[in-house]
Amino acid sequence: MKKLKRTEEIVKLEDFGRQVLEQVKKMRSPDIKIPLRSLSNTIFDKKNQILKIGSKKQVRTYFNSAHTKKFMQTLLLASECKELIKSGKTTSIRDLFYMTKHTIGTGKENTFEDQDESNPIIEDLEVALDVLRENLHLFASTRGSMVGNVTIVDSGDTINLRKMGSGGWGIPSIVESEVIQFKNVDAKFVLVVEKDAMWRRLNEDKFWKKNNCVLMHGQGMAPRGVRRLLWRLNHELKLPVYVFVDNDPWGFYIYSVYKQGSINLAYESKRMAVPEAKFIGLSSFDQEKFDIPNNVTIKLNKTDITRCRQILEYPWFQKKSWQKEIKHMMKKGIKLELEALSKKGLEFAAKTYLPQKLSEKDWLE
Amino acid sequence: MKKLKRTEEIVKLEDFGRQVLEQVKKMRSPDIKIPLRSLSNTIFDKKNQILKIGSKKQVRTYFNSAHTKKFMQTLLLASECKELIKSGKTTSIRDLFYMTKHTIGTGKENTFEDQDESNPIIEDLEVALDVLRENLHLFASTRGSMVGNVTIVDSGDTINLRKMGSGGWGIPSIVESEVIQFKNVDAKFVLVVEKDAMWRRLNEDKFWKKNNCVLMHGQGMAPRGVRRLLWRLNHELKLPVYVFVDNDPWGFYIYSVYKQGSINLAYESKRMAVPEAKFIGLSSFDQEKFDIPNNVTIKLNKTDITRCRQILEYPWFQKKSWQKEIKHMMKKGIKLELEALSKKGLEFAAKTYLPQKLSEKDWLE
Repeated sequence: MKKLKRTEEIVKLEDFGRQVLEQVKKMRSPDIKIPLRSLSNTIFDKKNQILKIGSKKQVRTYFNSAHTKKFMQTLLLASECKELIKSGKTTSIRDLFYMTKHTIGTGKENTFEDQDESNPIIEDLEVALDVLRENLHLFASTRGSMVGNVTIVDSGDTINLRKMGSGGWGIPSIVESEVIQFKNVDAKFVLVVEKDAMWRRLNEDKFWKKNNCVLMHGQGMAPRGVRRLLWRLNHELKLPVYVFVDNDPWGFYIYSVYKQGSINLAYESKRMAVPEAKFIGLSSFDQEKFDIPNNVTIKLNKTDITRCRQILEYPWFQKKSWQKEIKHMMKKGIKLELEALSKKGLEFAAKTYLPQKLSEKDWLE
Repeated sequence: MKKLKRTEEIVKLEDFGRQVLEQVKKMRSPDIKIPLRSLSNTIFDKKNQILKIGSKKQVRTYFNSAHTKKFMQTLLLASECKELIKSGKTTSIRDLFYMTKHTIGTGKENTFEDQDESNPIIEDLEVALDVLRENLHLFASTRGSMVGNVTIVDSGDTINLRKMGSGGWGIPSIVESEVIQFKNVDAKFVLVVEKDAMWRRLNEDKFWKKNNCVLMHGQGMAPRGVRRLLWRLNHELKLPVYVFVDNDPWGFYIYSVYKQGSINLAYESKRMAVPEAKFIGLSSFDQEKFDIPNNVTIKLNKTDITRCRQILEYPWFQKKSWQKEIKHMMKKGIKLELEALSKKGLEFAAKTYLPQKLSEKDWLE
């Protein structure tokens, strides 16, 4: 990552530390306030159609012995992040755990025993400072690839995503504008596929070339890098986004994470959610529409049905069309994987299903 | 994949079918022979230093009602693979399951109910025909990325792996010479890293540039595409291979899969194993050698210790140096992750640890 002298994040980290210092100078027990990250503090913002974090906060007080260790850990990680940004380097959250783990004084107590202690504190810092962890120079494990009618610059290297063969460009975890820039954009939309197998089939059939688009996948549940890059493609380049997932409650939820954000990371929605994203399939009505045989359907199991009931209740699935979609799945009692389309021929998805869906605007929002 | 008229695999598939046909013509109950894939039929070939499959075979007889369904499934998948190769297309093993799943006749029985039935039969075909599934045009789920001083051609696209930014080229599942060719190779060796986080750190520090190498990772347990590509880099380009894994029994086993092959896929070793591969670290002796503090070590748990005892017994870990290495880990009772090196500074792995190991030839074979 480029070495930046004094980023917005450094200013925020320093302010964070200064507030603690000022309390100490006034001889008060210092405390820090962290917004609560829980379902009870998650709000669906109807106007903007994204999930948001509410106003509930927890207070972490140094002189409360139940808080002291976490207080120390929070400041320790904040301080290390500042050093990281200043060094212009990036690293993993596991690395950060090791970098800050040490024995305190001459005793036997360590700053951290386990990464389970440091990970939530990174999220605390993100929400308390209102910054992305990627801007704190921290990367997560990566998944997902991308090809299509666009050229990007990644860390100074110009990469033509029209010439990426079968493998594609691996989407990194940190895709902020300091690292990734867009160039020569011909694509007219983005297709995000849930699974890499379907992505590979569509790439082999050069779907992105024939349909002039960008083709990405997130290998299951949407990774942060993929979500953030999709956000940038939508917000900066104004590209419409279509999401292509399994016909089951898990696929529907993956779609909703791309669109409205996730409950876990509700505070990141404004930088990651794409409210304009459209659900292109697989729909519960596709079996009849495309004459897909019964023997490639799978019966919903108990967990599926419980999950269907849960998402039926989520405020962001209250649109009539979605209620109809979910209820139809439950009524039929079956789910359908992306791979089931191959029963109609290997090229069916690329040559029939997706083009028809797009031309008939047969999607859900 | 390029459309090939009559590949070696088509010839083998046709011979396979013809043998069955000839038995039928002679009014005999047809049978097929499949080499057994089990630990008891796995042999460590000392001369070639790779795992091999033994000579035990199972016979699948059509008129044995316990075999009939599997017999049918084997021929059904073989037939579909032939069509796949002829079409010049590739697909996932899940797709193949869906493509061949159908209801038999007017009854209620399906050819397959679950992918758990079709996956082992694909392995049966690989071992019976002595071909890679990739040559049957089947891909697995992919993991792993690559950068370095080499240019490759992937499906006709020329990709300079010196210019792949932070994301790298996603290593596909099928990396046979029909798909991937090498061009402009400057690299003098290959470094394979177990984890993507360390790969990213080394890529950010441009380790591959300063040390003139190829840098790949397999995101944990070695995926087939990564193993096969490594094999080609070693066999075709004669590049030495160094493997960089966690210091625990799981890391040691990952190394041994790159080197000798896996028990599961012993029959693939001759096309995937790299007996010359060297273990560059992390070694159980590194903590003292590099003065790594105690508080970043992790105690071996029960599962780790059991696994240590298992690999101590494997014939391919019988070298004195390896017995010493594993026993030292058990004696110390601790393991060490790649990330622990970050305690010595983010650039420690790239600038100190690896260069010193390489220059002192401090590795295990």
